Amino acid sequence: MVNIIVDAFGGDNAPDAVIEGSIMAVQNLGIKVTLVGNEKLIHEAAEKNNLSLTGIDIVHAETVIDIHEEPTSILKERKDCSMSVGLGLLRDNKGDAFVSAGSTGALVVGSTFIAKRLKGIKRAALAPLLPAREGYMMLLDGGANTDCRPEMLVQFAVMGSAYMKKVMNISSPRVGLLNIGAEETKGRELEIEAYKLLSEAPVNFVGNIEGRELPFSKCDVLVADGYTGNIALKLYEGMGLYFAGTLKSMLTKNIKTKLGASFLTGEIKDFKKKMDYSEVGGAVLMGISKTVIKAHGSSDAKAFYNAIRQAKECVDKGVTDTISAYIESRKEGEEN
Amino acid sequence: MVNIIVDAFGGDNAPDAVIEGSIMAVQNLGIKVTLVGNEKLIHEAAEKNNLSLTGIDIVHAETVIDIHEEPTSILKERKDCSMSVGLGLLRDNKGDAFVSAGSTGALVVGSTFIAKRLKGIKRAALAPLLPAREGYMMLLDGGANTDCRPEMLVQFAVMGSAYMKKVMNISSPRVGLLNIGAEETKGRELEIEAYKLLSEAPVNFVGNIEGRELPFSKCDVLVADGYTGNIALKLYEGMGLYFAGTLKSMLTKNIKTKLGASFLTGEIKDFKKKMDYSEVGGAVLMGISKTVIKAHGSSDAKAFYNAIRQAKECVDKGVTDTISAYIESRKEGEEN
Repeated sequence: MVNIIVDAFGGDNAPDAVIEGSIMAVQNLGIKVTLVGNEKLIHEAAEKNNLSLTGIDIVHAETVIDIHEEPTSILKERKDCSMSVGLGLLRDNKGDAFVSAGSTGALVVGSTFIAKRLKGIKRAALAPLLPAREGYMMLLDGGANTDCRPEMLVQFAVMGSAYMKKVMNISSPRVGLLNIGAEETKGRELEIEAYKLLSEAPVNFVGNIEGRELPFSKCDVLVADGYTGNIALKLYEGMGLYFAGTLKSMLTKNIKTKLGASFLTGEIKDFKKKMDYSEVGGAVLMGISKTVIKAHGSSDAKAFYNAIRQAKECVDKGVTDTISAYIESRKEGEEN
Repeated sequence: MVNIIVDAFGGDNAPDAVIEGSIMAVQNLGIKVTLVGNEKLIHEAAEKNNLSLTGIDIVHAETVIDIHEEPTSILKERKDCSMSVGLGLLRDNKGDAFVSAGSTGALVVGSTFIAKRLKGIKRAALAPLLPAREGYMMLLDGGANTDCRPEMLVQFAVMGSAYMKKVMNISSPRVGLLNIGAEETKGRELEIEAYKLLSEAPVNFVGNIEGRELPFSKCDVLVADGYTGNIALKLYEGMGLYFAGTLKSMLTKNIKTKLGASFLTGEIKDFKKKMDYSEVGGAVLMGISKTVIKAHGSSDAKAFYNAIRQAKECVDKGVTDTISAYIESRKEGEEN
């Protein structure tokens, strides 16, 4: 049975939402969950909310790493935190995947140095799934690596393609390069060089994608350095929040608009669902030897449930194995 | 009387929309307009649309620079294009400002080398105004300089502050640095160094602004390198288009939703107006010795009218003089 290790103390709504989401996962997905964190507090939270922990293992961890702490402290003074202990279990094959809504920086550092990168992968990349007009687009890197080299973007393309193919069932995922124009001469040295490398890589490269095209499903995998990717990711989220807020105040302005809104309930619900990150799970930390999912910091129980479901799918579909096999085949190619 | 030089052959709707917008400007703003472009074609377009060219001067230019041509060709093989001739008139004091909806790249190169930069300004920056929750935010650089140095970002902050103060009447414009986190240690070398310089600069620096915060009016001037700024600008536009499209299909889905929409007509109109770039004018090319406005490529007559109005305001309020005075005062400070 697949066992997902979950950081019970990551995110704004921990541990209550984590526990609730984990229970939903155990009941609905036919998996085991190992919750990591202060055992006493987990039991207290479950009791307070009348939740049964049947089917859930608990592994004690004394402390929690705060999002304001230095990410590298997960390797030193915060070795005993729930995230570090959870990643240790993952490394020791005590589980198949790890889910945390805690500090992104600490998760990147911890995953890289505790659970380790896949052999041959230069850098792990944070890979959120952005809702677009048709389906979802995976963005790599969403912020794990502030500075990137062109060959890293090629690996991001390969890893994103593996996910979209295996988990999202897209037979030949289209890979786009985030850039400021369509022509291959556009961008900085990074993009110009990455364009050349992507053109020769065994991915379905469809060229540069401009900021304006992002919501319109022009590609399935979008690669960028982690600085630009993070700006784009957060702006995407921010615009979603802004429009949702505008729509809400538009519809609740007065009796007349409220009446109008009553005719649109279903459509508004569909749109909200579409833009809701928690529907799809979290961001995958691609390039680690086992599946690691970064759940959103403000995840509720449903979001945790979906992040655990996403982790299980990555395990079931063998995403990391697919990436490994590709890296191996390339290496042989280079040696020949 | 203020005289605005207008490129009659820039943008998708040239020359018809340019002529119509120019006539609106002459009739409503108490200004003169000098239209630059093929004289015969301008007269033919005016005649076809039954428009009188009273109050408008025409200066002939033989050709047009295409957006797919190399920007630097404006200085060489395309010296006779409407944009180049218009910028020459600006340089020769035959007008107070220049408006074009043509190639951004050519406009940056042409403005820099024909009309020239303000003394002491390292680089001109494209400065669009993004609609935000309260009012507008000026983004510099929206794409004129793919690579930037930290001291350029400080000049962008000064130029944007001058505009927001003089034209938008904000007494102490808040300057933000686009970045991937709130702390001053976040970002690349560029942002870390720019943060330090901005903290010491005579602007109202409010710190880093993350992508998520962009629509929520956290600052009045947002500085970034031209690569990141262009990604953000276009994503901002793209998200606006995406939501407008989603809203439209939501409201026109069936009889029930159409009925609901009929109660919301005013609110939807207000929102569209808010998100409509053409309401505010174009992007200012800041740092040139005289006012240059880049109108959006898809500008209609109203957008051209507003871009011309914006150019007049920059002239009336002495935006370039304000920037010059600042650069002079800084230089004296350094010499002392």
